[in-house]
Amino acid sequence: MNRDQALEIVKEQLTDHRYKHTIGVMETAIWLAERYGADPKKAELAAIFHDYAKFHPKEQMKQRIIEEKMPSDLLEYSSELWHAPVGAYFVEKLIGIQDEDILNAIKYHTSGRVGMTLLEKVVYLADYMEPGRHFPGVDEVRELAESDLHSALVKSVQNSIIFLLKKSQPVYPVTFDMYNDLVMNGKD
Amino acid sequence: MNRDQALEIVKEQLTDHRYKHTIGVMETAIWLAERYGADPKKAELAAIFHDYAKFHPKEQMKQRIIEEKMPSDLLEYSSELWHAPVGAYFVEKLIGIQDEDILNAIKYHTSGRVGMTLLEKVVYLADYMEPGRHFPGVDEVRELAESDLHSALVKSVQNSIIFLLKKSQPVYPVTFDMYNDLVMNGKD
Repeated sequence: MNRDQALEIVKEQLTDHRYKHTIGVMETAIWLAERYGADPKKAELAAIFHDYAKFHPKEQMKQRIIEEKMPSDLLEYSSELWHAPVGAYFVEKLIGIQDEDILNAIKYHTSGRVGMTLLEKVVYLADYMEPGRHFPGVDEVRELAESDLHSALVKSVQNSIIFLLKKSQPVYPVTFDMYNDLVMNGKD
Repeated sequence: MNRDQALEIVKEQLTDHRYKHTIGVMETAIWLAERYGADPKKAELAAIFHDYAKFHPKEQMKQRIIEEKMPSDLLEYSSELWHAPVGAYFVEKLIGIQDEDILNAIKYHTSGRVGMTLLEKVVYLADYMEPGRHFPGVDEVRELAESDLHSALVKSVQNSIIFLLKKSQPVYPVTFDMYNDLVMNGKD
């Protein structure tokens, strides 16, 4: 599947604003992939489809999580987490993408996880820092990403957790585990 | 055991600076206990003994954690966590305090845990906000503690986690779980 075909498919699933975000993630993911040695074609596809299920009705996502036996603790935490694994499911079933690394990059682009692959890191970070993102700390992450993927990733996770902590919102434990994994196990 | 006897015992275990901190924790814990309906005598004893093992050699604490089958993941995280469960152990074995709630208040005064008792919360918070503590955010916690134990506790945990995040240091997962428990399950 080429870029134009893929973009045509997701455009129908997204608002104009979210489609523009997706383009930003795509360009950033390709740039990061080229810079750090991930596969740019895989980064492109994963980025294009990362928000595939973003606007699916919550109730349907919930049902899918239950039926497909995705981690049930997702349902105890923010529904903002749900579109990632549900998106990966549909991208496999409906779009026919089989590549595990692409599917995992979609699946973990919001929560992160312990032991992320390079492609997963690229998509996670691209989603955080694409040019359409404007929030405190994002410029520092962009700067770090010029020369140090690991430090940029750590900073983005720190910022995301601190954002939730300051609002007294729960943090999905997998994200905490990812943070500890990154700072305890370094750049591997 | 009365206050003077207890203080005499811990004074031998602590530096002057830490002994002064212990007095501050004791006074604050009694104040919080009276304010929020915990047992002030238990709060007093738990506070006096909370740092009993603070200056034990790391290697000895490590051995004790292994021998007594305390949670082994403690050893993967900051050694600053170790004196709390090791202290509870010695306070039971050497001082002879049997009260579970007092022992748990000592055991969890650094990490916290899911489902803390009122006494555990009182000692955790007293340790954080006693008058000798000076760091950003502590005055806000003191103010909250005047009228709302839960909010003061949440704020103190948030501050502690954010402090570690900003330094890119690992956070003991039990502390993350405690945070989520507090914000998800409210004041219970």
